[in-house]
Amino acid sequence: MNMEVPEGHPRAESLRIREKLIRGFEMGVVAKAGLIAHGRGEAFDYIIGEETIEPAMNAIRAAVALMLTAEHPVISVNGNTAALVPKEIVELAKLVNAKIEVNIFYHSPERVNAIRRLLEDAGAEEILGIDDQYKTTIPEISSMRRYVDVRGIYKADVVLVPLEDGDRTEALVKLGKKVIAIDLNPLSRTAQWATITIVDNIVRCVPLMCDIARELRGRDRQELGRIVEKFDNRENLKLVIRHILERLSELSKKGIYLPEVSEVFKEMRE
Amino acid sequence: MNMEVPEGHPRAESLRIREKLIRGFEMGVVAKAGLIAHGRGEAFDYIIGEETIEPAMNAIRAAVALMLTAEHPVISVNGNTAALVPKEIVELAKLVNAKIEVNIFYHSPERVNAIRRLLEDAGAEEILGIDDQYKTTIPEISSMRRYVDVRGIYKADVVLVPLEDGDRTEALVKLGKKVIAIDLNPLSRTAQWATITIVDNIVRCVPLMCDIARELRGRDRQELGRIVEKFDNRENLKLVIRHILERLSELSKKGIYLPEVSEVFKEMRE
Repeated sequence: MNMEVPEGHPRAESLRIREKLIRGFEMGVVAKAGLIAHGRGEAFDYIIGEETIEPAMNAIRAAVALMLTAEHPVISVNGNTAALVPKEIVELAKLVNAKIEVNIFYHSPERVNAIRRLLEDAGAEEILGIDDQYKTTIPEISSMRRYVDVRGIYKADVVLVPLEDGDRTEALVKLGKKVIAIDLNPLSRTAQWATITIVDNIVRCVPLMCDIARELRGRDRQELGRIVEKFDNRENLKLVIRHILERLSELSKKGIYLPEVSEVFKEMRE
Repeated sequence: MNMEVPEGHPRAESLRIREKLIRGFEMGVVAKAGLIAHGRGEAFDYIIGEETIEPAMNAIRAAVALMLTAEHPVISVNGNTAALVPKEIVELAKLVNAKIEVNIFYHSPERVNAIRRLLEDAGAEEILGIDDQYKTTIPEISSMRRYVDVRGIYKADVVLVPLEDGDRTEALVKLGKKVIAIDLNPLSRTAQWATITIVDNIVRCVPLMCDIARELRGRDRQELGRIVEKFDNRENLKLVIRHILERLSELSKKGIYLPEVSEVFKEMRE
């Protein structure tokens, strides 16, 4: 399907991201449920204002500091993430010295391969979660996502899970791992369970994480530790929700951003 | 893709609707963009509370009264609508004596045929928007949706547009038609432009429209006219937005519906 994005369309950027995702779908990287999940993200992003808000920036900073102080940080990659930000994920992994592991809900060898190819084209040298030799299971997770790599998520102390399902986040946290979630819904179980929740569009926030990683890389562990300590996820999520409430009530006040319908009819008649 | 909905999953009903949509996709009825659009709807429905709220009931009543008093009411059907509520749409059309017209954004003969078959299986006797002989265009609409049936949307005075794009709603209203929209986003251009906006899930609201149609069918035109007159779409949308604001602030207060993460860690250690 060729989706032409009309110039000057009010949601042009959002439509361009959607095109990228649909290309990922056509390559076999994105699942059908991934298209639906993307739509949910679009709605929340629309409500947030399609920009990286301050609480997201705070979470990004804490998340990068946490990854930089981790012993075994892992970035878990699913289809949508691979389709939308493959290069940025590879770059972030290099900057914070994290492993990349493919972990998907709708599992098939073809899909895993398509994701692997995409990540390799983006410059990934090592991709975990592919070689059966290293496969083990996390029994606490009931879906196909329970299969993890012994060198990766299994032994990770910090896992970055962009675009996650709630069950897995909960299971990983209960296993004692620190979980960084990227989720546009601040009320989701993922958002609530994660150690650090970045409420932002993955397309905006992964490049920002790279910037912050470049800034923080040289700092000593104590300073990074303080950045993490200072961050309170619960308070931060409240700030996100406050932002949403303010934005919605603003939108609804200036609201009705079109002329009265009766005025339109009048114009038509003239 | 076989999506098994786990028993007791917090979003079981929402997942079952999603399965229906994916079957529609596999039949060629639903477009890729339709899957994404469905996700957007899911997010807004989640925020609304996945129930038909009072302002939606008010809009449903006014909408049915408007259709019953229309001279040429038409129900515009796209892929998602056909996939999710084919029987209900056919029933509603019969109850309010409306025509059914297929009108889709991503147009192909195969897709139109798949939708036609689905509607025929659901009991539709006459389906407009298919026979080229009756095709004309509404130049105000730039997408493929500008092709309409001279017997249908072209001459309609009232058009029900479930799951619409903003451009077309605006164009139809500017052409002097009364538009009834079903849209879960109360801030969308569709919601704002429509004459009557039903902010509800199509799966819940079309059956309710049938119920109300059965109730109102016998009433005289004057009484129906009063129901329409009494309804103020702008005020009603404000009530919807107020509902959302209240629900979000409630959710964010009781909020964090899981134990403190520190408590979880304690449990794990015990």
